[in-house]
Amino acid sequence: MKAEVLATGDEIRSGMLVDSNSAYLARHLQAAGFAVVRHTVVGDDLDALVSIFSEIGLRSDVAVVTGGLGPTPDDRTAQAAARAAGVDLVLDKQSLKSIENFFSARGRPMSPSNKRQALLPQGALGLANPIGTAPGFALRINKCMFFFLPGVPHEMRQMMSASILPHLRRLLGDARIHYQTTTISTFGFPESVAAELLSGFGNRFPDVDLGFRAKFPEIQIKLYGQGSDKDSLQTKLADAARWIRDRMGGNVFSENGTSMENVIGDLLGQKNETLAVAESCTGGLISDLLTNVPGSSEYFLFSGVVYANLAKANVLGVSWTTIDSYGAVHEETAKEMAAGAKRVSGATYGLSTSGIAGPGGGSVDKPVGTLCIGLATPKHTLGKRYQFPDLGRLRNKQLFAMKALDILRCEILGIVTENKIAIVQS
Amino acid sequence: MKAEVLATGDEIRSGMLVDSNSAYLARHLQAAGFAVVRHTVVGDDLDALVSIFSEIGLRSDVAVVTGGLGPTPDDRTAQAAARAAGVDLVLDKQSLKSIENFFSARGRPMSPSNKRQALLPQGALGLANPIGTAPGFALRINKCMFFFLPGVPHEMRQMMSASILPHLRRLLGDARIHYQTTTISTFGFPESVAAELLSGFGNRFPDVDLGFRAKFPEIQIKLYGQGSDKDSLQTKLADAARWIRDRMGGNVFSENGTSMENVIGDLLGQKNETLAVAESCTGGLISDLLTNVPGSSEYFLFSGVVYANLAKANVLGVSWTTIDSYGAVHEETAKEMAAGAKRVSGATYGLSTSGIAGPGGGSVDKPVGTLCIGLATPKHTLGKRYQFPDLGRLRNKQLFAMKALDILRCEILGIVTENKIAIVQS
Repeated sequence: MKAEVLATGDEIRSGMLVDSNSAYLARHLQAAGFAVVRHTVVGDDLDALVSIFSEIGLRSDVAVVTGGLGPTPDDRTAQAAARAAGVDLVLDKQSLKSIENFFSARGRPMSPSNKRQALLPQGALGLANPIGTAPGFALRINKCMFFFLPGVPHEMRQMMSASILPHLRRLLGDARIHYQTTTISTFGFPESVAAELLSGFGNRFPDVDLGFRAKFPEIQIKLYGQGSDKDSLQTKLADAARWIRDRMGGNVFSENGTSMENVIGDLLGQKNETLAVAESCTGGLISDLLTNVPGSSEYFLFSGVVYANLAKANVLGVSWTTIDSYGAVHEETAKEMAAGAKRVSGATYGLSTSGIAGPGGGSVDKPVGTLCIGLATPKHTLGKRYQFPDLGRLRNKQLFAMKALDILRCEILGIVTENKIAIVQS
Repeated sequence: MKAEVLATGDEIRSGMLVDSNSAYLARHLQAAGFAVVRHTVVGDDLDALVSIFSEIGLRSDVAVVTGGLGPTPDDRTAQAAARAAGVDLVLDKQSLKSIENFFSARGRPMSPSNKRQALLPQGALGLANPIGTAPGFALRINKCMFFFLPGVPHEMRQMMSASILPHLRRLLGDARIHYQTTTISTFGFPESVAAELLSGFGNRFPDVDLGFRAKFPEIQIKLYGQGSDKDSLQTKLADAARWIRDRMGGNVFSENGTSMENVIGDLLGQKNETLAVAESCTGGLISDLLTNVPGSSEYFLFSGVVYANLAKANVLGVSWTTIDSYGAVHEETAKEMAAGAKRVSGATYGLSTSGIAGPGGGSVDKPVGTLCIGLATPKHTLGKRYQFPDLGRLRNKQLFAMKALDILRCEILGIVTENKIAIVQS
């Protein structure tokens, strides 16, 4: 069955916003067994909306549309859908009720413009939005069943997985083809090196498609398979994943799409160990990543974001002699920062970063991209220095944070890393 | 003149890759004066390509197409364009020459499949690609002038700015329409309240389009204008922005798309003041945001991410009596955290957060969404408490961090905020 994805809104049409909803929807429609034939973007213009709804209604079986369901006058999706289907807008009591519930549950007054959101095309089926005010709806236009969802990504995703995908899977029944994907997350290689390490994959696994995705600073290796038998598909992908792991070694940090900070959390949790961090050049990013993991308060005790030398000395007990002789960016300083974070918090591990994130602050000896890492463990305290290319401040911070977490991961797992200039994707 | 953007390739069609080329192209086409009416994505399928080329050929004046120009068999753009235009593929000598030059300049052998890339539709104009092997081409299909570019973003961008945009600007000449956008960033209102505050806008500024964008946790108000006279367009938008500012008051934190962390940085920089932070529930996010701003080391001295009470006491000097009597999440504890951050770093301001980001840790008295903020200034030390709805851990952290930074902004600017439950967009 043919499916299409449509994103609406002037912000996406004019390119001010990159549309990531459509990729998400395409992936899930395809995984559910649909042939996704086209994505389209149009603006908030009523005629443009009516005309694309009519076109899709003639050529596809299923369409998922995002955006234009909000309370403001530039939200015209329901009106356009009604016009394309040749029906009127009517007040949907169920949808009104759920909007009212949304506001009363939060003790907030409901404004008249929110009532407008319950006006749906006659014959439409309201789709509840448990986490936002904009209800969605389903409506047949010509031969195509349309699902209209809000453009806010987390609301769209929740509605898609909770109510629309189960419905679509039933619609397909036995005609279903299984699609499966395995994501292997690696760090430390550029894409081209990863591709060379895996040359010969195609001959060995002719039924599995191999893809690479740079999700900076990690490189994800994606395996795609399809077939009518789910079990043999799974075996095929598992064999391919094992083959890749053998070639990639310690650079693989997860095989199910799990983030580095989740991997660290699992490792610490399993061993009942704790972590403290001292961040200079990463400026709080390591802490932010670690504390994005629910339950991180069990193992993450403290981070000192010590931009100022006074804070390095006062809070972490880094000696002024060390700072004066080596400078703030140095592996000796990083070692004392890591030891200080461990000491003041009583954590099992102290991890620190000090480096030059740019754009200013670089020198000939320590250009932008210099990273020093300290790691204090119950056994020893290590200091390392790396020189990365300058990828711009935000990406430098991301790379530095990832490298520090990866050093900790390798230490916990006993993976040997060398103190060398790392190859990274630029 | 009407323009369209088309991205091709199975990776984008199936959602494995998010298409960011189209947003880039739309922005530049619009800035050059075209009305971008639609974006489309199709896969590598020959029939799908022919059919979308024919459709666009009938309805638009200009189209920019990306992808499908590589050397592999799934690169079918030239073949499909030839078929849609009703012409044959012929060897373009100029393009062949530049592919050969590409390889010889790099001392790499040219493979026979690369020669295939010089086969262009008869009548097409080859477009040089100085940094890749895939040459582009321009071809008229029906009434529309198509520009075909490689899908590799940096090659596409280089060709777009070096050769296509200058050509397009000449094409428009006097017919050029200017587009202008103003972004007004607000915090503290939901979209529906913002829309009501601005009701009457359409009557007062009939030539300016008003849009809202929820960029959680802020709401951006967007003004779009177009016209043939650039100066009068600017005046119109400036008048509209002033009208909005008068209605939104202190909830507006920037009028040029600048982020809250940049606004804070500018305010501190102007006054030569400094900041230290103590973060519990925000877990390093405030520091990470602040240090994303280049030059933040001038005013951002320290953050203590103090998840553990031991760290609150040891690092910030929060008294155990306060923690024992009030608990870690309390405005009194937040006040001592803020004062401690200010003291250990010598900063002008100390800002702190302590709250429940969830999913665990909530209670009847202090459910998930509870936020306590402390602010120590040269004059006084304040403690505030807010109760937000639970929006999930990551969004709770984002909202808490934004609220804390906004409290600091209002303090510096002398904007009065009330100690009330804030209304936020969920």
